[in-house]
Amino acid sequence: MNPESWLLLCRSVRFGETDAAGVMHFQQLLRWCHEAYEESLERFGLAAAEIFPTPGTTPEVALPIVHCRADFFRPLSCGDPLAIRLEPQRLDPGCFEVRYRFSSGDTSVAEGLTRHLAIRSDSRRRCSLPDPINRWLEASGLQQGVQPL
Amino acid sequence: MNPESWLLLCRSVRFGETDAAGVMHFQQLLRWCHEAYEESLERFGLAAAEIFPTPGTTPEVALPIVHCRADFFRPLSCGDPLAIRLEPQRLDPGCFEVRYRFSSGDTSVAEGLTRHLAIRSDSRRRCSLPDPINRWLEASGLQQGVQPL
Amino acid sequence: MNPESWLLLCRSVRFGETDAAGVMHFQQLLRWCHEAYEESLERFGLAAAEIFPTPGTTPEVALPIVHCRADFFRPLSCGDPLAIRLEPQRLDPGCFEVRYRFSSGDTSVAEGLTRHLAIRSDSRRRCSLPDPINRWLEASGLQQGVQPL
Amino acid sequence: MNPESWLLLCRSVRFGETDAAGVMHFQQLLRWCHEAYEESLERFGLAAAEIFPTPGTTPEVALPIVHCRADFFRPLSCGDPLAIRLEPQRLDPGCFEVRYRFSSGDTSVAEGLTRHLAIRSDSRRRCSLPDPINRWLEASGLQQGVQPL
Repeated sequence: MNPESWLLLCRSVRFGETDAAGVMHFQQLLRWCHEAYEESLERFGLAAAEIFPTPGTTPEVALPIVHCRADFFRPLSCGDPLAIRLEPQRLDPGCFEVRYRFSSGDTSVAEGLTRHLAIRSDSRRRCSLPDPINRWLEASGLQQGVQPL
Repeated sequence: MNPESWLLLCRSVRFGETDAAGVMHFQQLLRWCHEAYEESLERFGLAAAEIFPTPGTTPEVALPIVHCRADFFRPLSCGDPLAIRLEPQRLDPGCFEVRYRFSSGDTSVAEGLTRHLAIRSDSRRRCSLPDPINRWLEASGLQQGVQPL
Repeated sequence: MNPESWLLLCRSVRFGETDAAGVMHFQQLLRWCHEAYEESLERFGLAAAEIFPTPGTTPEVALPIVHCRADFFRPLSCGDPLAIRLEPQRLDPGCFEVRYRFSSGDTSVAEGLTRHLAIRSDSRRRCSLPDPINRWLEASGLQQGVQPL
Repeated sequence: MNPESWLLLCRSVRFGETDAAGVMHFQQLLRWCHEAYEESLERFGLAAAEIFPTPGTTPEVALPIVHCRADFFRPLSCGDPLAIRLEPQRLDPGCFEVRYRFSSGDTSVAEGLTRHLAIRSDSRRRCSLPDPINRWLEASGLQQGVQPL
């Protein structure tokens, strides 16, 4: 599989994501990050129900976000095309984070980060990352290792 | 209890709810409607967990929205104060709707409506409205009956 | 141009669009409608800045939504794939609406509608629809006329 | 004026702010932060139009967010009451940040932060913070100085 297919995603800025200053309202970026994370898992071949609760199916392990942040370099307008490069990284056996680099044309416009902790859905106690996430993290690490400087 | 305390609510338009046209983006209104419905139940004395699923507690009856609509009469700007008058009405033993009249100052600015169907959470089959909702509907109907013309 | 390319769009239900009942929260549907409308214009070949305000560029004509509604037939879960068929229609020289039919697999799951009024951006008085929107409406009408029963 | 009236705000978790894991979806917290910032300015006595663009009125200075972050300590459920304590701080003559401490009952549940840069609305070049924001920052600093340990 071409790594680009799951670690480099695209979207456009939509009108409802702007505010009365005429540009993207900051909190939308974190939504874009999480949607990019979901789309990346989907393109890698994981079904949403393996990772996220759906009616009648609760995965044994939940992955709540314990930290997020974002930095904004340039204003974004309605219609602007965005490329989102994901850099997932395991921090320890029960925790990973994803860095999201946003660019529009050749310009870096923003960065986001989400950090996820593995907990058992029933007891909410810390546990190991689930296998599908480990496969995605490992494949992503290999791709990042070989990407051109 | 003063009926105003649960059928007449207030909020202000916030910056993130506007778009690049400088005014409130339409879809926010439906969010305001649902939050007003929740605040109304809360002020009437119902705990959220009696009506909405919370971790470890799923009410026997769910009340999904099967229809919603909104009409927009005036543009709304950041900071505009809003009064929201709720008019809940039972349509049949397993269905109710809420009309939301939005005004700013003395001007009517928008209207919204949500229609809710009672279904059993396990089978998703239609059933009767739960008792707490019936109490809220009946008390609201009495108040609407006596409100000044 | 293949009409499918601008009147039939796709997306998946994302985790942040669900609520604690485990299914898509109703107000997301109206956001999907507007984003589908924007993507349709984009695929048809219109630049966002022709229709929507961007910093430094305010189109002469604004197209605020004066009415919207939605009907929900089936619950939607995280990861569900959606096809969105748009049916734009001019109602009079200064007004149009778009109907959005949502399906997942072969099942009709929801419908939405947005009605847009043309007003002059400076005076907010009613006026005629702008040319780019008229071209999109006419081309869409032709396509709908020839689509298979 | 009682400082509590503009630096300690309240809200409840709403149903549409939860996700299918049954708890508050992370990105809502940043929205709460910005809405708390706006409510704080409003309670302090500043009109929204002094700070935020409204139709026909663009303040000379814009205050875009250049950095934000959040840390999550406990899951939050629909109906949970929240107290939000704001700690605004000037970083330099053209930049300030606000720390938001969220608690529910006696428990610290989350923290957020937004950092704002002053720029001229016309040229987007850096400039000094506007007077109303400086008054709010100074009054807030005085209050934080005298709050009990």
